Amino acid sequence: MGRVTERRRVIRIRDGAVSTRPDTLVAEEPLEIRLGGKPLAITMRTPGDDFALAAGFLVSEGVLGSADELANIVYCAGATEDGSNTYNIVDVRLAPGVPVPDITLERNVYTTSSCGLCGKASLDAVRTTARWSLDTAADAMPPIEPETLAALPDRLRAAQRVFDRTGGLHAAGLFTTDGELLDLREDVGRHNAVDKIVGRALQQGLLPLSSCVLMVSGRASFELAQKAVMAGIPVLAAVSAPSALAVDLATEAGLTLVGFLRGTSMNVYAGDHRLALRAAVTTS
Amino acid sequence: MGRVTERRRVIRIRDGAVSTRPDTLVAEEPLEIRLGGKPLAITMRTPGDDFALAAGFLVSEGVLGSADELANIVYCAGATEDGSNTYNIVDVRLAPGVPVPDITLERNVYTTSSCGLCGKASLDAVRTTARWSLDTAADAMPPIEPETLAALPDRLRAAQRVFDRTGGLHAAGLFTTDGELLDLREDVGRHNAVDKIVGRALQQGLLPLSSCVLMVSGRASFELAQKAVMAGIPVLAAVSAPSALAVDLATEAGLTLVGFLRGTSMNVYAGDHRLALRAAVTTS
Repeated sequence: MGRVTERRRVIRIRDGAVSTRPDTLVAEEPLEIRLGGKPLAITMRTPGDDFALAAGFLVSEGVLGSADELANIVYCAGATEDGSNTYNIVDVRLAPGVPVPDITLERNVYTTSSCGLCGKASLDAVRTTARWSLDTAADAMPPIEPETLAALPDRLRAAQRVFDRTGGLHAAGLFTTDGELLDLREDVGRHNAVDKIVGRALQQGLLPLSSCVLMVSGRASFELAQKAVMAGIPVLAAVSAPSALAVDLATEAGLTLVGFLRGTSMNVYAGDHRLALRAAVTTS
Repeated sequence: MGRVTERRRVIRIRDGAVSTRPDTLVAEEPLEIRLGGKPLAITMRTPGDDFALAAGFLVSEGVLGSADELANIVYCAGATEDGSNTYNIVDVRLAPGVPVPDITLERNVYTTSSCGLCGKASLDAVRTTARWSLDTAADAMPPIEPETLAALPDRLRAAQRVFDRTGGLHAAGLFTTDGELLDLREDVGRHNAVDKIVGRALQQGLLPLSSCVLMVSGRASFELAQKAVMAGIPVLAAVSAPSALAVDLATEAGLTLVGFLRGTSMNVYAGDHRLALRAAVTTS
């Protein structure tokens, strides 16, 4: 099994002083995800939680929605010429009767729409593949205090053990609406960190994650908003900016999208009905 | 043509005060890259410089190395049901006689090696497809002062016009070894920003970029190191950490890799022979 960190020698320059020393770096290796033996995707990821990553990826793609649809996930033997295993190829087998979708790398979620390739097609693809309605989830959720959200970045950062050693990892954290950390995953790819969280939840029978907040380091792209929607997570919070398409997806899907979550400040781009807000003052 | 930014209403929370106002967000849309009419890749990108993005992507994949290998790049008409154009599908046509590689999304650079899927296979794939040796480039380059590198992040940041409005963009900057900014691209995806820079250089007949420094916001992944090597760029500098595999590729390919470039400090992970360094003190 690959390691999460590796050591390399580094030359450090600090205010003109030059020194050499060992440094701890985050590991990055390719992972090929197969579905029923057929290659489906390759992602550069930090080794570890590979089965969860594969399962979560398939939740994001609309293939998996519950643990009983999953037969098993195995590392592929014989990946190398001498028949050994690189731990970089996993094969996901669906339970009997679960339809194997016509998904390949040439026909993925972004191209399934008949209306051509555009932002709207990306939104349509999520709507047609999503298994749960976020609006239903919202009904059962008490309003979230902004102060609760404001506390999440520090909790996420405090729990990032590998980041502390390497400075090279994105993080995704799953929280309760009271701000309790349920799970944290770190990876060189932010989308991988989210897939690992969602995949573990699937394996534990916890989907949809209808009473949870997903917090990510960095930006909120369309892809991350998609993954939240597909896992039934009603609230996505990010340290940095969302894209316009991520906001459009959140608005259409009923996802609460919070960005620039820093200190006591934040921007709410969609789904503010889940937050306990005082009356807003409209400015132009 | 899609816009680089879009406006959405946002609810701002600042120290308990709630207000609504228009906000400027970075645009994100899918781009499908076709080669000779055949779908090759889909990337979520910020619209703009799409032809450069497609050309640069094909440089990274080893398909293109010079402008005369490129016949033309066109937006595909008829992308929508009514026959109009979404500006989200581009078709790259190679010049007569240029071999169309057997590259598909199911058989990309990470899987071409016969030794199975692993970090070493990723390194092998770059070595076998790279068109230029970085060592040759280094011979013609005067040593770079660390002070010159230390000035790059501020110059990159100062030139980021869209980031100033949205806070949502990665940047890649191409500099001379004297620290002069030659080109800057911003995109929701860091790899897209680099592809746009490399593609523009190809279109202008400037490859290999053997006297240039590539500076990227954020981390230095394997993919970014690969793109530098494939474009013949001898120096890659990043604001944050590299991955171990990026360092391994840099070491093998002769790429100078600098990380944590902040203030007057930086870490040199590979290729320190291109830097004007005083004698290093070795510590353990």
